[in-house]
Amino acid sequence: MDIVQNERNKLFNEGLEMMLGNEIQLSDSEIKANEIIMDLKLEELEHGFQYPKNFKFAKHFFEYKDEVKETKLFQLIKKMPKGAVLHAHDTGILGPDYMVGLTYWKDLYVCFTEDSVKFLFSKVVPNATCETAWQLMRDARYSSGNVKKFDSSLRKYFTMVIDNPDKTYTDVNTAWENFQNYFIASAPLLCYKPVWEQYFYDTLKALREDGVMYFEVRSVLPQLYDLEGRIYNSVETAESYKKVVEQFKVDYPDFYGAKLIYAPMRFVNEEAIDEYIETAREIKRRLPCFLAGFDLVGQEDLGKPLKSFLPQLIEAGKEFDLFLHAGETNWNGLTSDENLFDAVVLGTKRIGHGFGIVKHPVLMREVKQRDIALEVNVISNAVLKLVADVRNHPLAAFLAQGLPVVLSSDDPGVWEAEPLSHDFYVAFVGVASRHADLRLLKKLALNSLYYSTYPDKDKIVHDFEIRWTKFIDTVVRDKW
Amino acid sequence: MDIVQNERNKLFNEGLEMMLGNEIQLSDSEIKANEIIMDLKLEELEHGFQYPKNFKFAKHFFEYKDEVKETKLFQLIKKMPKGAVLHAHDTGILGPDYMVGLTYWKDLYVCFTEDSVKFLFSKVVPNATCETAWQLMRDARYSSGNVKKFDSSLRKYFTMVIDNPDKTYTDVNTAWENFQNYFIASAPLLCYKPVWEQYFYDTLKALREDGVMYFEVRSVLPQLYDLEGRIYNSVETAESYKKVVEQFKVDYPDFYGAKLIYAPMRFVNEEAIDEYIETAREIKRRLPCFLAGFDLVGQEDLGKPLKSFLPQLIEAGKEFDLFLHAGETNWNGLTSDENLFDAVVLGTKRIGHGFGIVKHPVLMREVKQRDIALEVNVISNAVLKLVADVRNHPLAAFLAQGLPVVLSSDDPGVWEAEPLSHDFYVAFVGVASRHADLRLLKKLALNSLYYSTYPDKDKIVHDFEIRWTKFIDTVVRDKW
Repeated sequence: MDIVQNERNKLFNEGLEMMLGNEIQLSDSEIKANEIIMDLKLEELEHGFQYPKNFKFAKHFFEYKDEVKETKLFQLIKKMPKGAVLHAHDTGILGPDYMVGLTYWKDLYVCFTEDSVKFLFSKVVPNATCETAWQLMRDARYSSGNVKKFDSSLRKYFTMVIDNPDKTYTDVNTAWENFQNYFIASAPLLCYKPVWEQYFYDTLKALREDGVMYFEVRSVLPQLYDLEGRIYNSVETAESYKKVVEQFKVDYPDFYGAKLIYAPMRFVNEEAIDEYIETAREIKRRLPCFLAGFDLVGQEDLGKPLKSFLPQLIEAGKEFDLFLHAGETNWNGLTSDENLFDAVVLGTKRIGHGFGIVKHPVLMREVKQRDIALEVNVISNAVLKLVADVRNHPLAAFLAQGLPVVLSSDDPGVWEAEPLSHDFYVAFVGVASRHADLRLLKKLALNSLYYSTYPDKDKIVHDFEIRWTKFIDTVVRDKW
Repeated sequence: MDIVQNERNKLFNEGLEMMLGNEIQLSDSEIKANEIIMDLKLEELEHGFQYPKNFKFAKHFFEYKDEVKETKLFQLIKKMPKGAVLHAHDTGILGPDYMVGLTYWKDLYVCFTEDSVKFLFSKVVPNATCETAWQLMRDARYSSGNVKKFDSSLRKYFTMVIDNPDKTYTDVNTAWENFQNYFIASAPLLCYKPVWEQYFYDTLKALREDGVMYFEVRSVLPQLYDLEGRIYNSVETAESYKKVVEQFKVDYPDFYGAKLIYAPMRFVNEEAIDEYIETAREIKRRLPCFLAGFDLVGQEDLGKPLKSFLPQLIEAGKEFDLFLHAGETNWNGLTSDENLFDAVVLGTKRIGHGFGIVKHPVLMREVKQRDIALEVNVISNAVLKLVADVRNHPLAAFLAQGLPVVLSSDDPGVWEAEPLSHDFYVAFVGVASRHADLRLLKKLALNSLYYSTYPDKDKIVHDFEIRWTKFIDTVVRDKW
């Protein structure tokens, strides 16, 4: 009996030791806070274990995203310093209510077509194509007779959230189509330079309020426009971001700012990649400290695989850090899955998603050895139909093996999630082991700083530790 | 360029080499057959990759189980020698049409209640409790006015297959409740000794027709009864199985027979476990060569964990080989998940399911080192709500790591699957890598013999090789 029991304990403890964050030593206060946090987490899990029908994380995110906000554990995670956001796309972070707010800006024209909507800021009636007729948004809204109803129908263009999502989003492509429609509809609204800068300013504000201190933003860097008919190119768009970040840091000196990952679309030919790289060069020349690196975006299953741009990406990798999307797929052995091999050998600093890497033990070994972080976005993967019950998300295996993981949120506004808190909450309660505790949460926050390109790591980590200690004291003092 | 390309190839090939079955060398004929098989598989995958909405394996099994039977690849897998079935429960193997057929036996009484049905074979009207009234099945059927309709409504009690399964089977517990209702309803029908023996005989026949040569059957060994009022205990039930196997081997000398894994219910106290073990001892005394070993069955999430019976199971392990169910769950760090630790340290020869082991790298290492086979039942896990899209089934990771895997079917009759062919088909096309080929199929079949307790491995493997060669010749000759 004792021999078997001892062997069990030995294997069991070995498993615990391998888990991400296990090496973290908790202070006395942290131990107290951990008890509070774990009580809340276990209550949730034990209820779910007994009544799996009620277990949120087996359901669609849209079904539980609001109700979890009421839980103590969510509120606690919301307050928790979470470090950096390292994987999020610039125009998908703020939610539909914010977007509707933007439609109240003056000089906005709108064109309603059968199943979509077009926007354009202009001094005069736009002469851009419109299947019906351009109207001043103000006129359309107030002639509608019911502003509330009007806004609420407008809101639908800015969110993927619907009733019975599994019925509409039947598969990855359908979900992505709807997802992309958001970006198509919102682009001319956001690409108006004053809105563009305000949106980014407000994004930084939302991140800061969600316990984030630093941001590496991915952007396709679209052309911007203004009322005077000026068009701003990608480099100027990058400059406009830089300017916003500087202003934001003046207004909120406790925020550590943002850097840019230039991440244009992958659905292009080799010449276009050459142009992208030329643009990246120009950004690097003008804003050497602002550019974090290079990536390609868009649905991997449908886009060209990395290997088709290998010569270009090898060259790019010599000049820029790469942060490549790879393996955002549940196919096994198809091109999108095998982007993981290319990303690794191209020397990517981090992998965007890496969902499929669980099927590649060789690559799991390599990312550990080479210290390549996996930027995991659980909610995004669920909404975009890679996995239904998040308990089956490969993050569970990554955490168990102590792989270098950072949590992020991809496009939280599109599915009405908080900038980062929902992703932490779902990963901690729904995906990680029952035994994963405050040490995992702290490790994930620390990882997001460690795997960032923020130049002064000591400083930002030191400041993080101060904020963390304050947070822990609040948890213990208020007993939540 | 070349350096990066070479490194990619190196990692990629290392991944291929690690995959289950990679060491198998194909003969010239096998290479030709492999081309035929892979053409069919890749056609399926490439269509799915382009039109994920049509990809069967992302859908519920009930939606595609019939349509796949029409595919050439399925028909080929059906013909393929598949070795042994090592994980299936005796009374869940034949489908609802067979079960309806049993209700045509004479002396059968039926009692229809509001939402269920009771059966009993008897010479006279049974005096067992019936909420309505016992009728002779024959009378009920022919007085119904519409035999076809009557049979079709009867059929529903013998299958989980329904329209919109996700609407009814909302979670693991609801699916299991329905699953168990099948066993409750069918038990008194099957436990009539003549039916019991016929059902098992026909099971062996169905397995043989599905390319299976040997069977290790799990049974709770219920009491049987006959028309004379005799009750047969578990040991006698085992003897009745033994008798059927002997007869079957006389009738079909190419079949290698069956052995018994005595697997009573886990929802019991320690005293009951002691009784189980006493029963197992008695079976071993009387039928030493027929008993393969011991296990416990029933929904792990709800049942007692293995650790609560540790002293008893340690003793049992000294007398019998253990083939323990463990980790048939998607919970992470709860008792059902941690049964995996107990199963391993108890020295289980194989693990029933092991779904959760992907979250335990220490245990994946141990099963490889200790050569403990994982008895994987993909379709069962999908129907019983552990995973929706089978591309997310952990089998993909097991195969990639070359873990010792055998494929099985658990209770194929309950979800109207073929005894084994559907599981091979789904695992091969839906779960395994695009690169997994005939070598994987052969390895899985060989594993089922290697990890069995069949006493003369050389003989059965030799015979398997002969059948395999014939099969390959047919594939090549007929070009399918």
